[in-house]
Amino acid sequence: MATKKRAHELGVAAVAKRAGVSTATVSNTLNRPHMVAPATQARVRAAIEELQFVPNRSASALRNGSGRLIGLVVPDIVNPFYAAIAKVVATATRERGYVMALCVSGDDAEVEMAHFTMLAEQRAAGAIVVPLGADTSRLARLRLVDAHPVLVDRRWPVDDGCSVAIDDERGGFLAVRHLLETTTGAVAIINGPLDIPQCLERETGARAALGAAGLDPDQLITRTVAEMTIEAGETAALELASQTPGGVFTTNDQLAVGAIRGFARAGVRVPDEVSVVGYGDLALATESLLPLTTIRQPKDLLGRSAVDLLLGEIESAGKRHHHEAVLHDPSLVVRSSAP
Amino acid sequence: MATKKRAHELGVAAVAKRAGVSTATVSNTLNRPHMVAPATQARVRAAIEELQFVPNRSASALRNGSGRLIGLVVPDIVNPFYAAIAKVVATATRERGYVMALCVSGDDAEVEMAHFTMLAEQRAAGAIVVPLGADTSRLARLRLVDAHPVLVDRRWPVDDGCSVAIDDERGGFLAVRHLLETTTGAVAIINGPLDIPQCLERETGARAALGAAGLDPDQLITRTVAEMTIEAGETAALELASQTPGGVFTTNDQLAVGAIRGFARAGVRVPDEVSVVGYGDLALATESLLPLTTIRQPKDLLGRSAVDLLLGEIESAGKRHHHEAVLHDPSLVVRSSAP
Repeated sequence: MATKKRAHELGVAAVAKRAGVSTATVSNTLNRPHMVAPATQARVRAAIEELQFVPNRSASALRNGSGRLIGLVVPDIVNPFYAAIAKVVATATRERGYVMALCVSGDDAEVEMAHFTMLAEQRAAGAIVVPLGADTSRLARLRLVDAHPVLVDRRWPVDDGCSVAIDDERGGFLAVRHLLETTTGAVAIINGPLDIPQCLERETGARAALGAAGLDPDQLITRTVAEMTIEAGETAALELASQTPGGVFTTNDQLAVGAIRGFARAGVRVPDEVSVVGYGDLALATESLLPLTTIRQPKDLLGRSAVDLLLGEIESAGKRHHHEAVLHDPSLVVRSSAP
Repeated sequence: MATKKRAHELGVAAVAKRAGVSTATVSNTLNRPHMVAPATQARVRAAIEELQFVPNRSASALRNGSGRLIGLVVPDIVNPFYAAIAKVVATATRERGYVMALCVSGDDAEVEMAHFTMLAEQRAAGAIVVPLGADTSRLARLRLVDAHPVLVDRRWPVDDGCSVAIDDERGGFLAVRHLLETTTGAVAIINGPLDIPQCLERETGARAALGAAGLDPDQLITRTVAEMTIEAGETAALELASQTPGGVFTTNDQLAVGAIRGFARAGVRVPDEVSVVGYGDLALATESLLPLTTIRQPKDLLGRSAVDLLLGEIESAGKRHHHEAVLHDPSLVVRSSAP
């Protein structure tokens, strides 16, 4: 380490000489640019380019006592919802001088815990986490080393920390209100397990839309599937077809694609005889042969808010910080499956 | 930094006392476990758990003179091909004790360069890179600080470094051989710009399949599109319909979905009148209403090979290292669009 530090100091000295400034000015240009006049900064940066000097930020971060590493912990990166969040978080952290470590927990609590341990060992400044399940006790590992955790797409008591999520009840409400306004006949929901908070909230919103239209919320025909896949949607729609609903709300886009397939197999035409509204506005919403009416989640806003909350907390060091729980509204996107 | 180092040393001392071993044994358990008897290791780890001690690996990495940070630089993380690679690389690096920083270059050479600079400043041990375009000179920034670059899904001269890619010529060959074996009439290709190496190689393979079947490679009907989107595939198929090809090879899955739409609009039935083979085996290959016959790229193998090559190079420090260029074969997956 002494060697690396020494190499860094020699580099700073060479840049200072070339730019005709002191080594303190080089250091300030790198670490506290607001203290250096723009023209001087430009001279220092030109010398850095000419000498191909690469400042050692990992050492300087340690000297300042605050890491530049931010963890993003998600259950899956192939899921386009999490991929969209990762894209925004990677970009926003880079723009503000941090490095984002991507941690994929793969729906495995042990792997998630191994990631928290690794981020703690690396003295990460903080982590943006989509935790597995409702048990957030594993996040204590991060707090041991003062790494700030911010939840995304999940909520916890605001005393525990910052969080940013989407109002899924609002999403369910928007989907079913659209079906009530554009179709006649009964409304059905094809939903995942109700112990998943998002599924419960989307169904609560769906019932609220019936209530707001002066109907009995218990008129909602419900079908619950164990896995929210295309196959499950197809099976559920085949079963539903005999009840001739006018509109079906599926709580993700995969179920919607499956439901359209199932109705086609049962000889029920979408959208002429039954309308289908999905949830998520994934790529498959427009890639399927029948483009989906669906609920769009503000993924970019979710990622940007999480970064703002986390860096606000990290950079408040010493000052008073108040946790915030931010909730963003989703929106309805109308396409062919429920015009 | 002195404080952090001191806190780490106090923690090690407390663990040693609790486990009834020397501080050197604690340090060996953390950093050189092969030197410590399993029973002793277990005692040390139990003490670490009880005391909730989090070793500071970022400092120890610096002391050892080698970082534990690996960069993954990809053009886009929402693209499911790159997301699949990121998933494998994140998992494989974690399992071997490294942290993966995700860098999204967004098809912007300046952003890519900013990522290389950042990784160099953080003294990353290496980077797995899908570079933008054919110009790999920006990677020199990494070499300045001895961070090893490994190319993935791209090739460069083996003297420049390790690389792992997929044999796209083989993929084009497999696609068109299948069409020749299962259809009659002319074969067409809908391809992206030929200055993209993958597009050129897939078309070269397609022509080779005609040659291998004793046909004139110039019989291949070609359509080139500027952007490889569903919309472009639809337009190209509408134009092709009058030439009544028996089989169409599209060089990605988006073009295949579009081609099926275009033929449907032109009143040509897929697969009864024309077969369509895609490329990539993305999720949309099975999510579309007509599941696609397509070329599967071994994404997991690509990611795992890249990690093996990179860590082999990093951990060879001092010993002789020979760069390798690894090429994996894709495979044909037969579904309904070209049975």
